[in-house]
Amino acid sequence: MSLLVTGSIGIDTVTTPYGVSENCIGGSAVYFSMAASFFSPVRFTGVIGSDCPFDLREVFSGRDVDLEGLEVREHSRTFRWKGLYHDAMNEAVTEKVELNVLAESPPKVPDAYRNSKYLFLANTAPALQMELLGQVEAGVFSAADTMNCWIDGHLNDLKALLGRIDALIINEEESRMLSGESNLLKATKSILAMGPEVVLIKKGDSGSIMCNKMGEQFILPAFPMAEVKDPTGAGDSFAGGFMGYLAQAGKTDFKSLKTAVAYGTVVASFTISEFSLGGLTCLKRKDIDKRLEVLRKVTGF
Amino acid sequence: MSLLVTGSIGIDTVTTPYGVSENCIGGSAVYFSMAASFFSPVRFTGVIGSDCPFDLREVFSGRDVDLEGLEVREHSRTFRWKGLYHDAMNEAVTEKVELNVLAESPPKVPDAYRNSKYLFLANTAPALQMELLGQVEAGVFSAADTMNCWIDGHLNDLKALLGRIDALIINEEESRMLSGESNLLKATKSILAMGPEVVLIKKGDSGSIMCNKMGEQFILPAFPMAEVKDPTGAGDSFAGGFMGYLAQAGKTDFKSLKTAVAYGTVVASFTISEFSLGGLTCLKRKDIDKRLEVLRKVTGF
Repeated sequence: MSLLVTGSIGIDTVTTPYGVSENCIGGSAVYFSMAASFFSPVRFTGVIGSDCPFDLREVFSGRDVDLEGLEVREHSRTFRWKGLYHDAMNEAVTEKVELNVLAESPPKVPDAYRNSKYLFLANTAPALQMELLGQVEAGVFSAADTMNCWIDGHLNDLKALLGRIDALIINEEESRMLSGESNLLKATKSILAMGPEVVLIKKGDSGSIMCNKMGEQFILPAFPMAEVKDPTGAGDSFAGGFMGYLAQAGKTDFKSLKTAVAYGTVVASFTISEFSLGGLTCLKRKDIDKRLEVLRKVTGF
Repeated sequence: MSLLVTGSIGIDTVTTPYGVSENCIGGSAVYFSMAASFFSPVRFTGVIGSDCPFDLREVFSGRDVDLEGLEVREHSRTFRWKGLYHDAMNEAVTEKVELNVLAESPPKVPDAYRNSKYLFLANTAPALQMELLGQVEAGVFSAADTMNCWIDGHLNDLKALLGRIDALIINEEESRMLSGESNLLKATKSILAMGPEVVLIKKGDSGSIMCNKMGEQFILPAFPMAEVKDPTGAGDSFAGGFMGYLAQAGKTDFKSLKTAVAYGTVVASFTISEFSLGGLTCLKRKDIDKRLEVLRKVTGF
């Protein structure tokens, strides 16, 4: 089924204990689309400036990623992010951010995308996420990400968005911030009461927790990795695997959501094994399925 | 099969966001034995002073816990611990420790215990753990716990012990300290090279990881708890459920070790639901088995 993503395209400079990757391709929509493309066609929406050194058509070459929604703004500059990960690699330290096009008006969702059945609103201002959601026909299964600065400064906008989406995918600390609860089960309960049917909390190398309004729960560890070279994009790849699988399955019952979380977990484990998109570019769907079975084996009892 | 534990009996004062529990019963051998007694008879070894206000026979009343190894030292004082947990409850802040009898010579293992088939050496000085291990006949399946102060100050003794035991059960930070590796898979590999066949790392509310020398892995989340009143004894209850199940099963193949980890996880979840032993005293084996099935359901996909 049709899967639409709106998010960022970034020029990243990332330092980890394994080295530095300068001016490499990044951004939430890019990681998401790469990850989702193993499962389902993707409709891509995002904006770059004329300074962007990457040819997105080449980046997604051989994949069913529709770039009609890619907008190049002649007099704008592309989003840039410079970050650093310390030894444990659980959290990025942002050294520099240039929002550039992300601080301008959001992209227009092409008319041909309006009938999409699955939608991922990557992290941006909740008012913009709401505007993007409004451009898609009713009946879509929508998931959104958010972050601390919107919880802090735009809580009303965020709460309005939460009343409209089906799933919220956020990290552990953000869930605590949004709910005011330190216990993650209480946090999910509190966030579910704000609107979404499903809350999915990402815990980095400790895996994820998913709960729905029916009281169903799913808890999955991260895939065990002895070597993590660059955690950038892990969360967006996770969301990409998750939504990509749902779009492929064409259903969102809890069993399908659980399998989707497992696929998201596995795709993210490939992402973090190399810098930038290096862990995903040569990957095949059969590698993902093989690792899913390993995950099932190492977590089953 | 016969399961022997050597460890502490404590007089604990614990403060958590849910309240204060003053001068309540605690100690590694006590939590371990309560947890293990749901699965297997337990042979208890430990020392108290004449000041101990608890009647251990009453504490373990109705359970198959042999107290022949309990020694009361007339002119000694019982181990005391005062600790505090903050909101997230992932780590205890020790406010006061009185080692008392724990700083004296270790208890003697009764002759009748020497043929035990399963042995848990709760955290104490590794030289004492070695001495206790030496009092048991060869062929025992032995597991030990340790902590930061022994890794820091008694590393040679600890390494000698690691060459003699079958399994090491430690927490995340201790595994990093002992191995010098921040990645937990690398940490387990490094610790396995020091001797034990199995390394089991406790990650608090993020569950546990177990690896063996054959390269087999098992990763299990913690049981989801919306309310944690007092995490004291979680690790020792986990070890008790783990070793208790193995002693009951009478085997230590990896499949049995996995089930044992799941039982340890479940018993620990009951421990932390109340102060001191409150979560275990009225518990029945069928409650444990029921929760094990819930754990299987919320982690399976």
